Amino acid sequence: MNNYKSYLLFVAIAIVVSASGSAFAASLSRATATCIECHESVTPGIVAAWKASAHFKLTPADALKKPGLYRKISAQKVPAKLKDVVVGCAECHMANPKRHKDTFEHNGFQVHIVVTPGDCAVCHPKETEEYAKNLMSEAYNNLTGNPLYRDLMDSVNAVQGYHSGKLSYASKVDGQTEADSCLSCHGTRVGVKGMKTRETEMGDMEFPVLSGWPNQGVGRVNPDGTKGSCTSCHPRHSFSMAIARKPYTCAQCHKGPDVPAYKVYIVSKHGNIYSSQGKNWNFEATPWVPGRDFSAPTCATCHVSLLANKNGEVIARRTHQMNDRSAWRLFGLVYAHAHPKKADTTIIRNKAGLSLPTELTGQPVSSFLIDTKEQNKRDERMQRICLSCHTTQWVKGHFAKMENTIKVTNQMTLASTKILLNAWKVGAAKGPSQKDSIFNEAIEKMWVEQWLFYANSTRFASAMAGADYGVFANGRWYMSKNLQMMSDWLEFKLSAKKKK
Amino acid sequence: MNNYKSYLLFVAIAIVVSASGSAFAASLSRATATCIECHESVTPGIVAAWKASAHFKLTPADALKKPGLYRKISAQKVPAKLKDVVVGCAECHMANPKRHKDTFEHNGFQVHIVVTPGDCAVCHPKETEEYAKNLMSEAYNNLTGNPLYRDLMDSVNAVQGYHSGKLSYASKVDGQTEADSCLSCHGTRVGVKGMKTRETEMGDMEFPVLSGWPNQGVGRVNPDGTKGSCTSCHPRHSFSMAIARKPYTCAQCHKGPDVPAYKVYIVSKHGNIYSSQGKNWNFEATPWVPGRDFSAPTCATCHVSLLANKNGEVIARRTHQMNDRSAWRLFGLVYAHAHPKKADTTIIRNKAGLSLPTELTGQPVSSFLIDTKEQNKRDERMQRICLSCHTTQWVKGHFAKMENTIKVTNQMTLASTKILLNAWKVGAAKGPSQKDSIFNEAIEKMWVEQWLFYANSTRFASAMAGADYGVFANGRWYMSKNLQMMSDWLEFKLSAKKKK
Amino acid sequence: MNNYKSYLLFVAIAIVVSASGSAFAASLSRATATCIECHESVTPGIVAAWKASAHFKLTPADALKKPGLYRKISAQKVPAKLKDVVVGCAECHMANPKRHKDTFEHNGFQVHIVVTPGDCAVCHPKETEEYAKNLMSEAYNNLTGNPLYRDLMDSVNAVQGYHSGKLSYASKVDGQTEADSCLSCHGTRVGVKGMKTRETEMGDMEFPVLSGWPNQGVGRVNPDGTKGSCTSCHPRHSFSMAIARKPYTCAQCHKGPDVPAYKVYIVSKHGNIYSSQGKNWNFEATPWVPGRDFSAPTCATCHVSLLANKNGEVIARRTHQMNDRSAWRLFGLVYAHAHPKKADTTIIRNKAGLSLPTELTGQPVSSFLIDTKEQNKRDERMQRICLSCHTTQWVKGHFAKMENTIKVTNQMTLASTKILLNAWKVGAAKGPSQKDSIFNEAIEKMWVEQWLFYANSTRFASAMAGADYGVFANGRWYMSKNLQMMSDWLEFKLSAKKKK
Repeated sequence: MNNYKSYLLFVAIAIVVSASGSAFAASLSRATATCIECHESVTPGIVAAWKASAHFKLTPADALKKPGLYRKISAQKVPAKLKDVVVGCAECHMANPKRHKDTFEHNGFQVHIVVTPGDCAVCHPKETEEYAKNLMSEAYNNLTGNPLYRDLMDSVNAVQGYHSGKLSYASKVDGQTEADSCLSCHGTRVGVKGMKTRETEMGDMEFPVLSGWPNQGVGRVNPDGTKGSCTSCHPRHSFSMAIARKPYTCAQCHKGPDVPAYKVYIVSKHGNIYSSQGKNWNFEATPWVPGRDFSAPTCATCHVSLLANKNGEVIARRTHQMNDRSAWRLFGLVYAHAHPKKADTTIIRNKAGLSLPTELTGQPVSSFLIDTKEQNKRDERMQRICLSCHTTQWVKGHFAKMENTIKVTNQMTLASTKILLNAWKVGAAKGPSQKDSIFNEAIEKMWVEQWLFYANSTRFASAMAGADYGVFANGRWYMSKNLQMMSDWLEFKLSAKKKK
Repeated sequence: MNNYKSYLLFVAIAIVVSASGSAFAASLSRATATCIECHESVTPGIVAAWKASAHFKLTPADALKKPGLYRKISAQKVPAKLKDVVVGCAECHMANPKRHKDTFEHNGFQVHIVVTPGDCAVCHPKETEEYAKNLMSEAYNNLTGNPLYRDLMDSVNAVQGYHSGKLSYASKVDGQTEADSCLSCHGTRVGVKGMKTRETEMGDMEFPVLSGWPNQGVGRVNPDGTKGSCTSCHPRHSFSMAIARKPYTCAQCHKGPDVPAYKVYIVSKHGNIYSSQGKNWNFEATPWVPGRDFSAPTCATCHVSLLANKNGEVIARRTHQMNDRSAWRLFGLVYAHAHPKKADTTIIRNKAGLSLPTELTGQPVSSFLIDTKEQNKRDERMQRICLSCHTTQWVKGHFAKMENTIKVTNQMTLASTKILLNAWKVGAAKGPSQKDSIFNEAIEKMWVEQWLFYANSTRFASAMAGADYGVFANGRWYMSKNLQMMSDWLEFKLSAKKKK
Repeated sequence: MNNYKSYLLFVAIAIVVSASGSAFAASLSRATATCIECHESVTPGIVAAWKASAHFKLTPADALKKPGLYRKISAQKVPAKLKDVVVGCAECHMANPKRHKDTFEHNGFQVHIVVTPGDCAVCHPKETEEYAKNLMSEAYNNLTGNPLYRDLMDSVNAVQGYHSGKLSYASKVDGQTEADSCLSCHGTRVGVKGMKTRETEMGDMEFPVLSGWPNQGVGRVNPDGTKGSCTSCHPRHSFSMAIARKPYTCAQCHKGPDVPAYKVYIVSKHGNIYSSQGKNWNFEATPWVPGRDFSAPTCATCHVSLLANKNGEVIARRTHQMNDRSAWRLFGLVYAHAHPKKADTTIIRNKAGLSLPTELTGQPVSSFLIDTKEQNKRDERMQRICLSCHTTQWVKGHFAKMENTIKVTNQMTLASTKILLNAWKVGAAKGPSQKDSIFNEAIEKMWVEQWLFYANSTRFASAMAGADYGVFANGRWYMSKNLQMMSDWLEFKLSAKKKK
């Protein structure tokens, strides 16, 4: 208690001193100081955000002094020239200049536009390494490099025309649309198209012209060849851990009908408590202590953050491989399944030769997926967190219910697949045998909704106890209704075809 | 003003003293102290939540000293052994041991897992009694004990199979699915299946094995025979009144398309003001004073809380019978109607012999519903609250609009019912005459959406002035479109049938 | 810094003095003091809200002393009798008594119920003038005075009946329904129907009886002939600028599927940062300084507020003409187009003679719309705000993507229009040639959803970078699926018709 009081006193003094603008005067590198000279007036918003960030307040040398669990820098040491200056413009935008295709000469410095996991790795190598094992880091590649998903993507984005009573899809989708659509979350491939002179407040200047920009998608392919965008979750230029720990960050990509994680969370009891009391919680503390710093988990608590109890005993180690504590991939493709072993899922082949982790009839493609032993390990990691507030019986009961829901929703997906297979068989729709897309007709889109929207929603609702997303809010109600609608569609289509 | 200043001073001192960790040192019972010895390290999260709760800070004896409106304990007196200890683990988890089928021997104590309204009634008998008159307390029984609702439930939850071109529903629904689906909000029946020895940090221990667990549904049937779960709204283990007063609590079950109360509220002007300013309001004050403690109502303000003006004159008495201030049951079954007299609605029979508060053609089954006099009384209770900020004309105008909307939405439900009746008559779907479920075919599900989603949404939007939920967001737009779709479905179905 | 410190000291002292209830003792007019005598007990909520407002704290004379950008009053001078009293009940509810048809004698004063832009204009003439150029100010007239939109409105609100196997729309829609539906946001026409004596706590009193009341829609036609309702965004009786600057205000009308601005914003990075950190921002400052007062924009930042940098240089001038910084009207009618020149859009006629800003085939009706030069000017105004935090390339890239999305979504709307035109041509539905409504049949409603829901949603998602509302959450997925469903509907309908 005394220690804590001293700490409070220290914080109070620090605030006062800080406000007086002297004690924490940042040790800027010469390069960063030069950047600031113009950019404080040219782009004041981001300079202000950076000045409020931990990067402005601490040098790497200071950060390295923090003991064990309190440390947020994961490098054992940092290059000498970076050690004693705060992490400013230059430290990131001038890192690794040779690897960056977007490096250009700017007022005498070699600057690049796109800061990447490769740049962040100078101080945060462990997080970068973990993130590379994260499915998200391959979000661009997995989507565009898998012919099946590519086809789904095209069926969503392609402009349709209507001529002589028939709809047809454009054979090409423009890159702007893709960047504005799927790739907004998945990440674009950022390239350098050339240089361009632009008039600025400081006179004419030359800048690289980027393609696929702006973008902050999680699997962005960067001009230095790295994948991902740390700013997806630690947004610019606050680099905030607190923001990443709040559910609004995840909501940016995980709120839609395909993956309504945020929606489910927010109507769960956890979400209710967070919404009601979260404003008084400590989102800055490292390690993060359940009961002391917060009284209900957010997304990060269960999936990412370093958690410890008051005595400094680790409950969960920090991970940037988001499925490190998840046995099941609830997001069915097309059925929910054990998580893939590797982040790159384009390598998966099922018996039908498709890049899918399950057969169309539901069996998992086990050789590419983690085994039961690894699943149990991940369950154990997650459940240790639950046990901070819940008893064993509560936790086991919750997970048993969820596994049952995985099974049942997969059965409901199977029923819809059978209707689709029949539609193809009887010629009511064109499928693989006709070398046609499996995503472009109405019945096929209804089938996609069965697994992508309704079965997924039901599983997320189960996993996070936001029940209605498993019932009337895109849950079982719609799984049930959609089957009846698909079956009727088939009947109507066949009838209309016979008529002709 | 002087009084208020003294009070502020008192609060300030209390905070300081409290922070020093001495003045409010809890008077724990011996039993609770024993629980804490292990559970502070085994389940630190809930122990921390409890330590932040009023239960930890006040003994019942202290609570009983509070005058009139300031008192939150409703018992006139409490058993001697509870009076001078704070309300800790033992006081709840060891209450009424004989009534609890889940009582077990645990380190020398008779402990039960599930804390129930029966346990809370020791100090809060009035709330428990009122809650028993609340429709919610019968949410399990009313759903599962009414053959018609049971059938709706099964049609949502049953796995469907597709064989030889035909869909069929499984005849049985597994209990896990029900618990994960409808019963998550409605409540499960919690039973004791036996005992099980489990390895723990403290060695092997025996625990009862519960069925229907975990669950915190509002109509949960508990191992002591009581119904409900106070933790539905006063979540564990903060027992917080402040949380229950915030709209996020209600949102857990009242956000879906069937009953979008939260969604409507949050886009109403009330919701806007709450979202914008609520973080500065006082959610702890008892009584709750409009203007002083808050400047726009939340769900609890209008439906539950004790409200008084600055002079301590009661505006609305506290009630845990949620429809105590509501004349109309907006949630149509299948038409909106005057509220049922009793919480147990399985006793209702309409002329057709169905357990429905209205005929299929809309007439209310009046003998089971409150009469106009009681409706007026409830309206008056509610409107007294509105009048704290609005003039009589404003309030009367608002309610007149709402009653008109009840009438009009009931007419739109009637039109859909007529289409359904016609579909049954002409053999396009199978209904009661064929002894078939009235919820299992596409046209029947479209009919359900007409009243359960669209008419309900429109009425909630009207009642709470969140207009879009009465227009494009699941409101009149969908009521109107759905009728056209139903009519077309019938035409297509008949055509397809003739074709065969 | 010293200035800022002095300011802080001043604020601190002000707070202390203010709390003691003396220094800021309001200078009430005699009339207002009389109002308060009763209304503090009759409607305590609004009196309390007013007492917390700037109107209570400052006299116009004080407000006029504020220099340049700090001033919120836009009148150069105010009538002598108003100058030295705070803005209380009487100052608004007794302004312009002769113009107000709702003026009545109340305890010796000439009082009116509905406070209007005309009343606010006494102190805020510039805002009133700008608002009159705002599309919103004509929201009632544009909707009800355009035969086409009127027809859409009726098709949504009219009760449908089902007789002899046929649906039909009621020929008249009751006013209560309209007020509860579309006009709730668009505004009603508030009229005076007569006088009525009502029993009150203060004895019998006579009040005007209003029609179209209560209502706070943005285009409300008031009893003094003015249009709009300042309280739509500055809600009663806090008149808060801070509330208007928060996105919840806009959400009241801009969250539905037709115009999901709030939903898109809240899953954008801007929205994430606001949700995560906004509680610590300064929503009261005038001018509003990016970086100092907030670190991500809200709706008001980009569309309304006066922004300046730390040195007091204006980034954007305040405007109450909401499209002053918007080149494009994303809200397609039925295609997205350059903004109309005038707020009154009933004057627009396309080649087909319809009051639409585009032809049914997509061409803009250019003579009624702003030209490229004006579009560029508006883009520049908006982009200057973006440039506070983003580089030129980022900003240009973002807007290029958005313009591409406008083009592509218009193409997808065109495809649906062609299906509809074909449906009319082949007699599967009745259109203009049959003098039938173009909104009342299923295929027509599907067409409306194509542009009103899905194309709009996709464009808003693009404009504010909330990607999922352009993909699975009512975006491209639904645009694509809806076309397939429309085409199938047409096939089924024709088949069913041939059958007969």
